[in-house]
Amino acid sequence: MARGVRDRMVQSAIALLAKRGYQATSFSEVLAESAAPRGSIYHHFPEGKDQLIAAAIEVSGARAVALLDGLDGLGATEIVDGFMAMWRAVLQLSTFSAGCSVLAVTVSADSPGLLEQAADIFRRWQARLAELLVGSGMPAADAASFATLLIAASEGAVVLARAEQSFAPFDAVHARLRDGVAGHGPNH
Amino acid sequence: MARGVRDRMVQSAIALLAKRGYQATSFSEVLAESAAPRGSIYHHFPEGKDQLIAAAIEVSGARAVALLDGLDGLGATEIVDGFMAMWRAVLQLSTFSAGCSVLAVTVSADSPGLLEQAADIFRRWQARLAELLVGSGMPAADAASFATLLIAASEGAVVLARAEQSFAPFDAVHARLRDGVAGHGPNH
Repeated sequence: MARGVRDRMVQSAIALLAKRGYQATSFSEVLAESAAPRGSIYHHFPEGKDQLIAAAIEVSGARAVALLDGLDGLGATEIVDGFMAMWRAVLQLSTFSAGCSVLAVTVSADSPGLLEQAADIFRRWQARLAELLVGSGMPAADAASFATLLIAASEGAVVLARAEQSFAPFDAVHARLRDGVAGHGPNH
Repeated sequence: MARGVRDRMVQSAIALLAKRGYQATSFSEVLAESAAPRGSIYHHFPEGKDQLIAAAIEVSGARAVALLDGLDGLGATEIVDGFMAMWRAVLQLSTFSAGCSVLAVTVSADSPGLLEQAADIFRRWQARLAELLVGSGMPAADAASFATLLIAASEGAVVLARAEQSFAPFDAVHARLRDGVAGHGPNH
């Protein structure tokens, strides 16, 4: 049960970060969203708010890596599609009100520790994506820079879609990214 | 003089948005940063904080359009370079502590009006970039989607660079975007 409360708080923090950013993700909002008792703060996050934020982006980052693991063995186009499908689901399920919690922390937190953690998560995504692309037959140097482009462009596309409240800019970016890997077919 | 105070407040709001997002851009922070008297709030922004935020992203958005106007007549590669140079300067001058105020409002404000305004600014950038790319000899449909990719990828690249505190991911994205327009030379 204690574990359940901590998980609910982390999930609420992820959702609040994805929707409104770091400052809006206060302990009081998290308690209200997760229906956790006030004592849970000191029990589960004795170091304070940034400990909760760190746990939230860690879970969020690991979830994306788990999704990427599921794309192993696919062709480059399918890898692009799979990564974009993850972001599309975030936009769709939230009716364009949520985006990336790691981006949110990067642009609104004021903590060197959280910034380093965000960088580390982006690096893990980039490394895993590059590895998958190499697996699809793409040369290593090409895969490394395309993985970085894929992360940057998808993050930006989510922001444009949230502003527009529409998939139009997101779909335009997705199509260009697909074009960028045309010719790299599945390796089996 | 009164005009000077309003301008200083708008500049401070742009800087605060670019560094910490919507919630952190409070009237009290803006007054402290701009050394404006408290009465300036009610004098210049009688409708409240969102009126200041709207003025800030409008100025910021128009500044980018003015920069784009300066790229008129150039080739597609130079247009990419010019747009990326603007973001590079933001990162460099702030030592990786600032990014895009329009992105910040999109991901951390909770106001349909501000979201519409952010979308409108992104649309103006996209339209102007597409127009410039067509002027460089790119077919219209290609220019429209590449302009959207350029905005999304540069926004994401700025976020990755802030997280990494390094130009490495930004430069990787820039190189891929340049590759994406290879073959579209200057038209005069």
